Amino acid sequence: MTDAKKNILFIMYDQLRFDYLSCAGHKTLHTPNFDRVAQMGVRFTRCYVQSPVCGASRMSFYTGRYCHSHGAQWNGHPLRVGEHTLGDHLRKLGMGCHLIGKTHMRADKDGMERLGMSEGSEIGLRQSECGFDSYIRDDGLWAQGPDGFYDERRSPYNEYLKSKGYEGQNPWHHFANSGATDAGEIASGFLMQNADMPANIREEDSETPWLTSRTIDFISEQSRDEPWLAHVSYIKPHWPYIVPAPYHNKYGVDDIQPLNRADGELNDPHPVYEGFTSNGIGKAFHRQEVRDVVIPAYMGLIKQCDDQLGRLLNFLEDTDRLKDTMIVITSDHGDYLGDHWMGEKDLFHDCSAKVPLIIYDPSPAADSTRGTTCDELVEAIDCSATFIEYAGGTVPDHIVEGRSLLPFLHGEKPDDWREFAISEYDYGATALAAKLGMEPRDCRLFMVADKDWKMMHAEGGFRPMLFDLKNDPKEQNDLGASDAHRDVIDMMYQRLGKWARRMSQRVTKSEDDIRNMRGRSMRRGVLLGLYDGTEVDAELLVKYQGKVPRASD
Amino acid sequence: MTDAKKNILFIMYDQLRFDYLSCAGHKTLHTPNFDRVAQMGVRFTRCYVQSPVCGASRMSFYTGRYCHSHGAQWNGHPLRVGEHTLGDHLRKLGMGCHLIGKTHMRADKDGMERLGMSEGSEIGLRQSECGFDSYIRDDGLWAQGPDGFYDERRSPYNEYLKSKGYEGQNPWHHFANSGATDAGEIASGFLMQNADMPANIREEDSETPWLTSRTIDFISEQSRDEPWLAHVSYIKPHWPYIVPAPYHNKYGVDDIQPLNRADGELNDPHPVYEGFTSNGIGKAFHRQEVRDVVIPAYMGLIKQCDDQLGRLLNFLEDTDRLKDTMIVITSDHGDYLGDHWMGEKDLFHDCSAKVPLIIYDPSPAADSTRGTTCDELVEAIDCSATFIEYAGGTVPDHIVEGRSLLPFLHGEKPDDWREFAISEYDYGATALAAKLGMEPRDCRLFMVADKDWKMMHAEGGFRPMLFDLKNDPKEQNDLGASDAHRDVIDMMYQRLGKWARRMSQRVTKSEDDIRNMRGRSMRRGVLLGLYDGTEVDAELLVKYQGKVPRASD
Repeated sequence: MTDAKKNILFIMYDQLRFDYLSCAGHKTLHTPNFDRVAQMGVRFTRCYVQSPVCGASRMSFYTGRYCHSHGAQWNGHPLRVGEHTLGDHLRKLGMGCHLIGKTHMRADKDGMERLGMSEGSEIGLRQSECGFDSYIRDDGLWAQGPDGFYDERRSPYNEYLKSKGYEGQNPWHHFANSGATDAGEIASGFLMQNADMPANIREEDSETPWLTSRTIDFISEQSRDEPWLAHVSYIKPHWPYIVPAPYHNKYGVDDIQPLNRADGELNDPHPVYEGFTSNGIGKAFHRQEVRDVVIPAYMGLIKQCDDQLGRLLNFLEDTDRLKDTMIVITSDHGDYLGDHWMGEKDLFHDCSAKVPLIIYDPSPAADSTRGTTCDELVEAIDCSATFIEYAGGTVPDHIVEGRSLLPFLHGEKPDDWREFAISEYDYGATALAAKLGMEPRDCRLFMVADKDWKMMHAEGGFRPMLFDLKNDPKEQNDLGASDAHRDVIDMMYQRLGKWARRMSQRVTKSEDDIRNMRGRSMRRGVLLGLYDGTEVDAELLVKYQGKVPRASD
Repeated sequence: MTDAKKNILFIMYDQLRFDYLSCAGHKTLHTPNFDRVAQMGVRFTRCYVQSPVCGASRMSFYTGRYCHSHGAQWNGHPLRVGEHTLGDHLRKLGMGCHLIGKTHMRADKDGMERLGMSEGSEIGLRQSECGFDSYIRDDGLWAQGPDGFYDERRSPYNEYLKSKGYEGQNPWHHFANSGATDAGEIASGFLMQNADMPANIREEDSETPWLTSRTIDFISEQSRDEPWLAHVSYIKPHWPYIVPAPYHNKYGVDDIQPLNRADGELNDPHPVYEGFTSNGIGKAFHRQEVRDVVIPAYMGLIKQCDDQLGRLLNFLEDTDRLKDTMIVITSDHGDYLGDHWMGEKDLFHDCSAKVPLIIYDPSPAADSTRGTTCDELVEAIDCSATFIEYAGGTVPDHIVEGRSLLPFLHGEKPDDWREFAISEYDYGATALAAKLGMEPRDCRLFMVADKDWKMMHAEGGFRPMLFDLKNDPKEQNDLGASDAHRDVIDMMYQRLGKWARRMSQRVTKSEDDIRNMRGRSMRRGVLLGLYDGTEVDAELLVKYQGKVPRASD
């Protein structure tokens, strides 16, 4: 690296909507610390994730590759062994790559066994943690049911709570993510009617402050001479929608922003869209009483994230690290929260597929853009490319499909910047797949979006969905069946086709490797297409001159 | 396996055209032994390779996956470490997987090092040999020039020749692939003017008999109780176009089949096609004197292959192995030989992209189809799937993209058989790429073919090429610019798009794995979308009942 003192604080929140920050225009949710980073750097207003579901989205953030390339299409899909990760790229450049929090990574144990790799070795551990050195791995979803824990791993956070005297097998649920009734009963945060209760835990022991403290520990332990990337990955504001006091009642129904939905959306809806509006979470968010308690709790969780971000920024400032630490703030996807008659994040409307992306680059080269916004089409995979270039490397574009954002941070725009963004979703493991009678391999959704249009394509013979982002920025009017928009749809399909045909697996040869192959074989004796040899320099033939050696017999 | 005595002899010839066998209609080249296998089994008349270039085509044969999936797009591209191969699939089923001859495999040494794999270990060796246990690896192209050998590996064949008294550093070239002038000078087989000379070697020491002897050695050494697949992979009739006596003068100009080309092909030609017609080998094959000596030599090489196949068949018969050994005969691609004004195999006309495929299945279930032909659309990747099913396995269709041909061998046709075949070619390492000023990543050619139409698409903004196979079986009339065929072209692009979007990298989860995920998370406590819990069985909530444990403080 050119500068051994450059670090990267790569902060991810889980399920944070792009528009739930005051710097992004939220009217009632004041987030001075997110806004402070936006003032220090550039806020990207059109950043799309490669998939609006945690696991797939994160594997794209961490590999710099589309889901179609890395294959971990949904939660719980192991990332195939050998897939290049941020850690592979950064360590080559002398930068450590560390994890503090959630990744949703699942190791490809079969693949590792097939290749004879031991899980305990350094290489094996990194393969199992998506290339990160794990300072703390805690995915923050320790749900438990009749069939056991959703996640069988050890939970450092649960261990922390137990050490603090919170009792029982699963204090993550019983305290951090539940309230308590007057009768002393657990009121599970999984039941949305409890969303307006305070979580039954001391605020400083809840997940967001806990992970912030671990992050401060980590940074304090690092040598000033060893550059590092720290992926600080918070579980919040992801459900369960419940937050400790005083955040549980900071917001009320008057603070809820206007619902973005229209009756027309349910007239002759696309079958896949209709399926998501009518699943359990979709129907729940049709209910006023659900939104009235869930959205204020969601806002409270974000407010707590903002306060903890302030704590982290102050620590960096007090320890004089702001001058050499890049800060990146983003999320793995959004949350419908009732918009478009949906809950969760199963489709590609902006509230789901668009995320916050704020980048502070301490370099003087970035001074000219501080406090500005960039509305170019950006993808989550661009983060990996940005980190590689920031660490002093050249992006290996036969492997990493994202592009560095440093030019934008330095006030330049590449001439050949992308014209459209792609996102994918695989609903093969959902109840909707069964309801529609689809084979898993056909449960594929694709988004193609530019600044004017967004098309959503579903495999299986369905018509597309199309939104006119210029004239219908709320994405309420699906033009997918409109003959008048046939040309736009054709153009979007041409783009999707070109993207899908792209070279994504030729990871063992770079563009330069291939240029260097040109003409090489002839100088190694492969004299293709010669009749009498006069076609080439005698030098290429000399090896074939001279007396014939005699076979001895 | 159901029958421990089933073996597979998977024989590949290099650069053998589909129509240079008498059973395939060649008028003057009599190939009784190829024809004998056709009589014993089924000859597939529409088998397309996944790429008309050795390395890429073979990686698809050996992985059962498209080039777009495995990424080894051209010769010399390492197959990424961890890619599943035939060996991985067959050994699980108790069948060995052995190599005798050429694969064109290059190991992903960087990838192996990154994963801490030792090249010397059994796993490392198999990773380096595309999953095969190497009985003999000899790629049969030991060309040498000012920059050294084209292939730096040791050549068992060269070592054999030296042991037989053929002198010099490279008897492969100086004897097996060159003639000798009256003055005792080497007449290199790379110079096509020498194609009518006899190779300066005893016929029994030339490559095809040598590899046949090694194959007989291998089979003789195998236990009758250990099922095996042997990939017998001949370099011939691949250039250098020169063959030992008596094969060098078995055929003359009168035996050459009519040239398949038309002046119209050069009127306003597609720029990529034009580039291949005007490169060195293309221009050489425009010349009558080249074709007049090269084609008879090519036929002689095939005749020698046929005689050696007879020797192998007789050995199997004499040792009573025909009853339990599947025999598969195919090639990695064809050879233009002047057709369409081209040499080599750089595009997708049938003489290049279509190959012979003859399969003899000893099972009684195949008795009804012996001696028949099958004209369904078959792809090279189907071979791997066929071998897996023949070995008693179920094709893992989240990894292997080909489909088993056993149904056709047993007289059935699956209802959902493919409607189109795909082939790919990457010319990024060729001089044409430089001439057209193309970046390597854009040097991508795709073929989409059904029984009626063949479209060739080139990335980079070119129009497609289109051939009407029904009315123009010789593929001489390019309709790619015809407005009247816009609908056909659109249909072909839709197919190409659907294919390109396919799920090809989700290799860590099967279709069944994903079906089994449906609804599972709720039973592990992820109670998504509940308001008051009445939405689900009490059983799912029971874990959340009871007194609240007190935090000790």
